[in-house]
Amino acid sequence: MAKSFLTLAAARRTAYEFSSKTVPGPAIKKILEAGRWAPSTLNSQPWQFIVVKNKKTIGGMVDAAYYGSFHGEPPVIIAIVLPREKYCGGTHRGIVQGRLGAKEALFSIAMPALSISLCATDLGVSSCIFSLDETLLPPGLGIRKGDSVPLAVGLGYEGGKAGDCKFLHSRKPLAKMVHNEKFSAKRAGSG
Amino acid sequence: MAKSFLTLAAARRTAYEFSSKTVPGPAIKKILEAGRWAPSTLNSQPWQFIVVKNKKTIGGMVDAAYYGSFHGEPPVIIAIVLPREKYCGGTHRGIVQGRLGAKEALFSIAMPALSISLCATDLGVSSCIFSLDETLLPPGLGIRKGDSVPLAVGLGYEGGKAGDCKFLHSRKPLAKMVHNEKFSAKRAGSG
Repeated sequence: MAKSFLTLAAARRTAYEFSSKTVPGPAIKKILEAGRWAPSTLNSQPWQFIVVKNKKTIGGMVDAAYYGSFHGEPPVIIAIVLPREKYCGGTHRGIVQGRLGAKEALFSIAMPALSISLCATDLGVSSCIFSLDETLLPPGLGIRKGDSVPLAVGLGYEGGKAGDCKFLHSRKPLAKMVHNEKFSAKRAGSG
Repeated sequence: MAKSFLTLAAARRTAYEFSSKTVPGPAIKKILEAGRWAPSTLNSQPWQFIVVKNKKTIGGMVDAAYYGSFHGEPPVIIAIVLPREKYCGGTHRGIVQGRLGAKEALFSIAMPALSISLCATDLGVSSCIFSLDETLLPPGLGIRKGDSVPLAVGLGYEGGKAGDCKFLHSRKPLAKMVHNEKFSAKRAGSG
């Protein structure tokens, strides 16, 4: 484990090139547990996780990636499902009759995705959080009309051209994103 | 630091009751660093962080909390701003001319919020991620028309009736949220 959460957070990076090496079952179990402990609006836990190892389904999901920059398919993908019973497609806020509004639903799906990716990093497993073109989901996933799969996380081990996307592992300095008490458009670079 | 990320993720909980004890500057700096390292759509890093300690502004933000269940105000709030230059209010997907669509923007704000909360937990600082009624934002924040503050994170130390909301620190078992290869509505409890 990293010495501190900050070390872990800074070490987490997106993998785009995976070897064929699979991820051991106990690691997948821990990674799912980390997703399970993610926070959500009013602890609604609206997510369902599908553990996908079937090569045809994985290929279909990679093809459905909204920004398709995979060079090699991950051996495992965790699809994060927002079942239609938990989601109100409309524009309301909050939770109405057990259904989350769009903001609440998307926040509550992003958080388990990040927990999954951070736990993977902690276990030495590479990961890639990606969003999908939901009109292209492979039928093998069993998704019903009205269900949503806003995000998925590929898991595996980097291989081949792993360094290709290193440019993504950088961040703007804090001086360009932190404001004291009051927002400054100038500091944000947009004044 | 927790022994593993999973231990940290399971230890993270929402605080609703804060004492007046303030959070040391070095801890706030680390917490902001953790937010800085969060992932975002195509590494767009659309967030800006406002560190709020002003009691009047904090009171206004707590009043604007969408689910207003604070019993005591946190001494520090990190407001996560999505500047209007980074966000397209419309329904498009992806990033168009530097502006994120709604899904991408909300994912990319939820992730630094969780990183901030996890780093706080790691440092022994209590936290509460909350969303806001954006029509009620206090003017002290300096938010411009068109900017958004989808989430904020209160930081401090639990005090008083800290145990009140312990029911929120539980999760459904994995057996009710994990599917192999294919989604099962029955397993999700909605079949």
